[in-house]
Amino acid sequence: MAGPPGARRTSPATPPLRFVTFRLLPMDFAADLAFACHLADLARPIARRWFRTPLDVVTKADASPVTQADLEIETALRRAIEARFPADGVLGEEHGSTRLDAARVWVIDPIDGTKAFTAGKPLFGTLIALAVDGVPTVGVIDQPISGERWSAAAGGGAALGDAPVHARRQRGTRSIADAVLATSHPDLLDGVPGLAALCTARFRAIAYGGDCYNYALLASGHIDVVIETGLKTVDFAALRPVIEAAGGVIVDFAGRPLTLASDGRVVAAADRALADEVLAALATLAEDL
Amino acid sequence: MAGPPGARRTSPATPPLRFVTFRLLPMDFAADLAFACHLADLARPIARRWFRTPLDVVTKADASPVTQADLEIETALRRAIEARFPADGVLGEEHGSTRLDAARVWVIDPIDGTKAFTAGKPLFGTLIALAVDGVPTVGVIDQPISGERWSAAAGGGAALGDAPVHARRQRGTRSIADAVLATSHPDLLDGVPGLAALCTARFRAIAYGGDCYNYALLASGHIDVVIETGLKTVDFAALRPVIEAAGGVIVDFAGRPLTLASDGRVVAAADRALADEVLAALATLAEDL
Repeated sequence: MAGPPGARRTSPATPPLRFVTFRLLPMDFAADLAFACHLADLARPIARRWFRTPLDVVTKADASPVTQADLEIETALRRAIEARFPADGVLGEEHGSTRLDAARVWVIDPIDGTKAFTAGKPLFGTLIALAVDGVPTVGVIDQPISGERWSAAAGGGAALGDAPVHARRQRGTRSIADAVLATSHPDLLDGVPGLAALCTARFRAIAYGGDCYNYALLASGHIDVVIETGLKTVDFAALRPVIEAAGGVIVDFAGRPLTLASDGRVVAAADRALADEVLAALATLAEDL
Repeated sequence: MAGPPGARRTSPATPPLRFVTFRLLPMDFAADLAFACHLADLARPIARRWFRTPLDVVTKADASPVTQADLEIETALRRAIEARFPADGVLGEEHGSTRLDAARVWVIDPIDGTKAFTAGKPLFGTLIALAVDGVPTVGVIDQPISGERWSAAAGGGAALGDAPVHARRQRGTRSIADAVLATSHPDLLDGVPGLAALCTARFRAIAYGGDCYNYALLASGHIDVVIETGLKTVDFAALRPVIEAAGGVIVDFAGRPLTLASDGRVVAAADRALADEVLAALATLAEDL
């Protein structure tokens, strides 16, 4: 689907294989993208209904808060997927996985940014992806409160609502030394020894908070780089289709495109040169990432 | 205006002097509050016009990014204040201060959260306060993108739009050990030696990001505690009227109500008991805060 990893490092003069493949299959996934947006439509009123109401917060084993909204959204989306695509697999955050050996697997994070949600901050999102043979191919990043929806499918461009979006580095960003690194929480830089110190030393500044919104804003050209570790599959699956269709880069710490099997260490960058600069810096941390 | 500091520690059985004063002057500042909202109305379209457009970011001496929106909003608001209240003083972030010896001083932060603004995040705010004899008396926390506006004046309640809001601790918060501390950036806990470690040890978790939005959400009952250091007068002046009118507490590290002369070390809490718990913890850090 995405071509061999090497193709992504091809020079701009030679279009990467991935791109050629997409051109040969224009909007092959248009119906799936429409269905993913339908799922986001189902999720949105549930999220809005629970937002800023007192919540019975359940603490899971990993200590992340999970809300009634989370559970209710995932139940509704699983039901819709089972009805429409009974052979497809589903990977969710709350109710585990079903048929992960299927060629097509839907990946759902009902409320990405549960801490933001419980604090009444509207920047949480609903993440929906369709992976084909393990490769995220359709992605939706939905913001139930603002009504913003980023979406993309292999073969088409990325859009915010109906408007095309494009990743691009900020004016004045010559290298990562000029860039503001976005990351949701200092803890997300603790997954690799030395990473937090490296980021502090190499970037102009670090901005915290944001969850999936950081990646959406990168796809829209407002953020240069996001680095996070410890992400779960449901946290990152929907990000790749959107960012790649917007012309940005999202890879693991070894520079590999994200699949459902990726390890949750993620670099997203507005362009290949910024990504390569980040990856070169990460390579100084350890031999084996 | 606010009564002696001691009055704020009076037991619930005896209404604090501040409250009695407010009752005797119901909505004495209604016209000023309406004017502050008018100023926010002037600021909003300017902020919206510049939001998510390429910005020529100027770096000030203190390295905080400041945008064209900042400058344009402050110019417009200063002009409106000069026209309506030519004898009043004005303290702004960009154009310095005028007539700070006046009894009435308007305090303006055109874009609180410039980093969020430049990253395309809609949670920045416009802060407008009127201080009388150094005491913030009218406050507006406006969110130009979402359209949310928190406002309050001495003598009235706090409102989000037209709806009254009330600070209250989260269900399940028995002490700060159960609370999520909100703070905009780890740097804002670095102003006092040992503070960051104390916060990490004493709170259940720390959530970063948010700027003025954290204080607004505390006034609405969604956040228990905010602690920050290094705030400028323009950053905190508008917060006191809103949080106090909502029934919350906002004080400096010694427990004193905020005035224009406060040092920028701020504790906001959903209720007096939480505030006292935070202040007791802070008192273990140093003899002289």
